[in-house]
Amino acid sequence: MRELTYQETAQWLQQCEDVCILIHRSPDGDCIGAGFALANILQQLGKRAAVVCEDAIPQRYGFLLPEDDVQPPSFTPKCVVAVDVADKKLLGHHTEETYGNQVDLCIDHHVSNVPYARNRCLNSSASATCEVLYAIFSQMPVTITDAVAACLYTGISTDTGCFQYDNVSAYTHHAVAQLMELCPDVPYAWINRKMFAVKSYGRLKLEQMLIDKLESHMDGKCMLICVTQEFMQKFALDDAQLEGIAGFPLQVEGAEVGVTMKEKETGVFRVSMRSADAVDVAAICSKLGGGGHVKAAGCQITGTLEEVKKRLLDAIAEGWNIR
Amino acid sequence: MRELTYQETAQWLQQCEDVCILIHRSPDGDCIGAGFALANILQQLGKRAAVVCEDAIPQRYGFLLPEDDVQPPSFTPKCVVAVDVADKKLLGHHTEETYGNQVDLCIDHHVSNVPYARNRCLNSSASATCEVLYAIFSQMPVTITDAVAACLYTGISTDTGCFQYDNVSAYTHHAVAQLMELCPDVPYAWINRKMFAVKSYGRLKLEQMLIDKLESHMDGKCMLICVTQEFMQKFALDDAQLEGIAGFPLQVEGAEVGVTMKEKETGVFRVSMRSADAVDVAAICSKLGGGGHVKAAGCQITGTLEEVKKRLLDAIAEGWNIR
Repeated sequence: MRELTYQETAQWLQQCEDVCILIHRSPDGDCIGAGFALANILQQLGKRAAVVCEDAIPQRYGFLLPEDDVQPPSFTPKCVVAVDVADKKLLGHHTEETYGNQVDLCIDHHVSNVPYARNRCLNSSASATCEVLYAIFSQMPVTITDAVAACLYTGISTDTGCFQYDNVSAYTHHAVAQLMELCPDVPYAWINRKMFAVKSYGRLKLEQMLIDKLESHMDGKCMLICVTQEFMQKFALDDAQLEGIAGFPLQVEGAEVGVTMKEKETGVFRVSMRSADAVDVAAICSKLGGGGHVKAAGCQITGTLEEVKKRLLDAIAEGWNIR
Repeated sequence: MRELTYQETAQWLQQCEDVCILIHRSPDGDCIGAGFALANILQQLGKRAAVVCEDAIPQRYGFLLPEDDVQPPSFTPKCVVAVDVADKKLLGHHTEETYGNQVDLCIDHHVSNVPYARNRCLNSSASATCEVLYAIFSQMPVTITDAVAACLYTGISTDTGCFQYDNVSAYTHHAVAQLMELCPDVPYAWINRKMFAVKSYGRLKLEQMLIDKLESHMDGKCMLICVTQEFMQKFALDDAQLEGIAGFPLQVEGAEVGVTMKEKETGVFRVSMRSADAVDVAAICSKLGGGGHVKAAGCQITGTLEEVKKRLLDAIAEGWNIR
């Protein structure tokens, strides 16, 4: 695998043709923003480009999609580019099978990135893949249109919790300032309100219930929440309604690690782990077969609720001691 | 009254002596950050300076205060500067009586600013008074220390809801990028977590109760919440615990106006009004004897709960039609 600089990546993108852009399953603001921003820029250069995702794009990101969004691509791809995909496993089963071994270029910001592409442009100091893309686009003869700016801003804003987390650098703020100068008509505040401030009344009622399900462990330093199949069925909840609850446990004062267990199917738990400051949850999750960022990681564990919870809490206690 | 440019204000500050810095009652992150940043800068220039506030500084902002914070000033002030104070009434009764008619300079960003000082440096396009101060400090022979950067960042971050609202401009992001470059050791993410992400378990339980108190009016376009004396006494709540609930009603999807009524004493309601986008709540509140920003304003109304609610809803309906 060859590591590319921003400049080399910009040149590569100018030369590619008929591009299939892959984003990860359970798509979030950063991979969706990155995927459609890149497609727009490549189309600007006269190329064919389409975004492919294993799962449907959640409705809340619908405003980022062009009207002629096509999936699967209506052309035979000559090049495959993955954006914000740290591991080809994260493409999802079908997409990995189709494209996993023929990715020409991976553009990413995850420190946990596992090489799978022929070329890689990785900046693990960047807050978001959209921040990496902005730096690359700055070296290309292209125009940052309102549609591109909306995509890039949404990716950066969502991956930083609206500029809240410590993945935000001076460059992040400079990049966003430049986006706002280039494209003053993009409704940035409206995007933020949509992404962060607004909840359906149903979501509020869900959070009201979740407060009662918060478990305090390790004297409150670890807060844990478990959403079982039974709970989801009882209140007719689906995955989309539970989006973003990974951050829920960590909002409690004094919590250093927040754990969310979601029972995917009976006995299979998808775990999200968030760290406030002191603990490296990427290290803990990678011991459990997962991965991610230092302060936001995940894994999947099989077993009974109590078994899984014990494995998690043991691993967290051990991770605490390691530092 | 004389209007000063940033340059003139910078010169004025370099020439002043023995400065008493006034901030508004019920102090928030912006006036506290502005007050202590200015005191620090003036002290750097060899001057005596002290921050005066009618009310105690809430504990959550304690990290911004210098250890030798003195109040009232241990010297006889020769100059009085008010920061983030849109109207001298907002100084609070005692402070207004003592200093209200002898304010030499007012530095502010509120569009509703009512002239009361001899000189005024007002930029109603700035997101925060701390953003105005950063621009002024940039024109002075001073060093932005970590303490000053923490103050300015906190003011900007809290007044923009962590860069979420539409008072954020490209300049806001550039200013913050520069603060991060000048002072990389300030724990910006820690400040944000403290200001935005963390809640006491008690606060979570309070919000759990507030969800049940949300009232939908005008087909959900206006969400209203009323915190009565009875409710506060029943759950032993004080004002500090209710800080920030003004934004609570507007988080409901579809809401355009969020209203929070807080019964200060029997029959006296302090009202906060927030607008998502379409409605000018400053205009509505000023008709009710209050004021503020287009999207965040307030007023105080006397009467029974039902009377006050009716006056509010009538004024909102009228304000809607005016546009």
